[in-house]
Amino acid sequence: MQIKTIEWVGGLNGYLKIIDQSVLPGRLRYLACRNSSSVFQAIKFLNVRGAPAIGIAVAFGLILGIRKIKTTKFTTFYRQLETIRKKLLSARPTAVNLPWALERMKNRALANKHKPIAEIKRLLLSEAKLILKDDRAICQRMGRYGARLIRNGFGVLTYCNAGALATGGSGTALAVLYQAKKDGKRFKVYAPETRPLLQGARLTAWELQKAGINVTLLCDNMVARLMQEERIDCVLVGSDRVVANGDAANKIGTYGLALAAHHHKIPFYVVVPRSSFDLTLKHGGQIPIEYRPAREVSRIAGKYIAPKNTKVYNPAFDITPAKYISAIITEYGIIYPPYLRNIKKVLL
Amino acid sequence: MQIKTIEWVGGLNGYLKIIDQSVLPGRLRYLACRNSSSVFQAIKFLNVRGAPAIGIAVAFGLILGIRKIKTTKFTTFYRQLETIRKKLLSARPTAVNLPWALERMKNRALANKHKPIAEIKRLLLSEAKLILKDDRAICQRMGRYGARLIRNGFGVLTYCNAGALATGGSGTALAVLYQAKKDGKRFKVYAPETRPLLQGARLTAWELQKAGINVTLLCDNMVARLMQEERIDCVLVGSDRVVANGDAANKIGTYGLALAAHHHKIPFYVVVPRSSFDLTLKHGGQIPIEYRPAREVSRIAGKYIAPKNTKVYNPAFDITPAKYISAIITEYGIIYPPYLRNIKKVLL
Repeated sequence: MQIKTIEWVGGLNGYLKIIDQSVLPGRLRYLACRNSSSVFQAIKFLNVRGAPAIGIAVAFGLILGIRKIKTTKFTTFYRQLETIRKKLLSARPTAVNLPWALERMKNRALANKHKPIAEIKRLLLSEAKLILKDDRAICQRMGRYGARLIRNGFGVLTYCNAGALATGGSGTALAVLYQAKKDGKRFKVYAPETRPLLQGARLTAWELQKAGINVTLLCDNMVARLMQEERIDCVLVGSDRVVANGDAANKIGTYGLALAAHHHKIPFYVVVPRSSFDLTLKHGGQIPIEYRPAREVSRIAGKYIAPKNTKVYNPAFDITPAKYISAIITEYGIIYPPYLRNIKKVLL
Repeated sequence: MQIKTIEWVGGLNGYLKIIDQSVLPGRLRYLACRNSSSVFQAIKFLNVRGAPAIGIAVAFGLILGIRKIKTTKFTTFYRQLETIRKKLLSARPTAVNLPWALERMKNRALANKHKPIAEIKRLLLSEAKLILKDDRAICQRMGRYGARLIRNGFGVLTYCNAGALATGGSGTALAVLYQAKKDGKRFKVYAPETRPLLQGARLTAWELQKAGINVTLLCDNMVARLMQEERIDCVLVGSDRVVANGDAANKIGTYGLALAAHHHKIPFYVVVPRSSFDLTLKHGGQIPIEYRPAREVSRIAGKYIAPKNTKVYNPAFDITPAKYISAIITEYGIIYPPYLRNIKKVLL
């Protein structure tokens, strides 16, 4: 199985084709984005989600914006590129892959400022394609490093969706499981549903079933009991931003899982590509946390589950302090504590 | 506000009137149970839920069964009573109030075995009414003891529904908040939705709003973040069974909350009547845990949220070890550790 979550179709006049993750698993529908604002919308409304996938989408989103710029002067081109980039930058605040990918695109433009605009546009398209291609290879490498940690007979807890649907390749946390399966290992996966938007139930259960992996769905509040019953041997999650000291932002609920895992002495692994690290931040408290609309919680499938106008607390992410993370699995290898030293050692 | 969750209407030929909690808050519908099997069904399918309310319902359920018995011989009467009692006993396994109430009814029958059957039936009806009446007074007393622990400006986390809807009175955990409000204290309540059946969203948010209490809804996986943001000063939950060493069974997810509270040094209080204690069990591992059907998790509001036939893990309860419980609030006073000694001291 290899789901093509995100794909560029055609040349510079082509379009971005993405799986609409908001209607899975009921429907497998594709969206064609033909301008940068439709990419902005697709990110904001979670048709595309997952830190690496957002990075890829936004790079192509920039292409869809800059290809229309009519000028021969670089300064004019660059000013307009910056407007588009800044707009895209505001789609979602927490995943660092979004600014990372846009920065990479911007730098490629700046490095070629003396070339004709038409050529810069082509170079930027090849840069976006490279981000996608790189991501596929990176997923594989994370998978190979991580699979070493999975033993026969393991019960593995994952969270949200850190799979093919969250990346341009086979996933972050789930890449590890795809590789372990390829290596002939037997294991069981437990997938919490991940309220409010149910990425675990809708995406992870779907993706793992398609891949023939033994997966059991549960509610988020059942995890501590599952650990108490000694069914879990390790936890594998992704992250939207890992900072210099190893603190990691991830889908709301991850921190609670990490506390429960710590308490039950279960290894807790974060699987992330280099592009999800933000070494400009010292600690997790500096990561911007997105708070999302009340209706995501108070309604399910269009129906109110609480009295209308109920006040709602709805952070989309939380921060897991480094001390609860047993190791960070990257495409450069597995990083163990102390993170402040070892992240730099492995990545820089 | 005083919701009448459960009420007996008329004399021995009357009926049991209960709020159908499965359709709240969208509809306020009442069910009239006129035989013991409809009470059995109402408990099994959660039209009535909450340990004290289940105890009350089952006592009246026995009345609805035994009133039809046509005999003048006590042995015949008692044999049929036992058949009805054993059937009702199997409705749900975890809440001890169910066997407790049925035992109390049985003992009342045995204590009056030499009286005419017609009189025994009347005495049993008065016993069931007494269980309901007692529960109202017990809720008030738990409320008064517990309210001492609530300070002005507190952020209080509750869980599932431990309110008027779970009892014959003002609740267990929520009775504390109703009393604190009466005492003029200002505080905020946070109510996790409580998957899979959303009692927090549907029942607690509704009940507290009706009472004019400031309540905020959140998903169950957001609790650790809420604590990390220092918004919670204490946790108040009910329990379906507290055993001799202080271990407490409660709605699935309670154990995870307790771990998070412990980690953040937030007091964690269990509010329960004497009738929810089971001192015949030594530790929580001996409490039977109910596992409920997959469809409760894989479907919401009739819609599948995961691929059909997805395997599901769905325990309805978990066990919170006594060491994470700061105090147990009962109608006899507040019990502090060590529980093995102090529970007996306060209750026996």
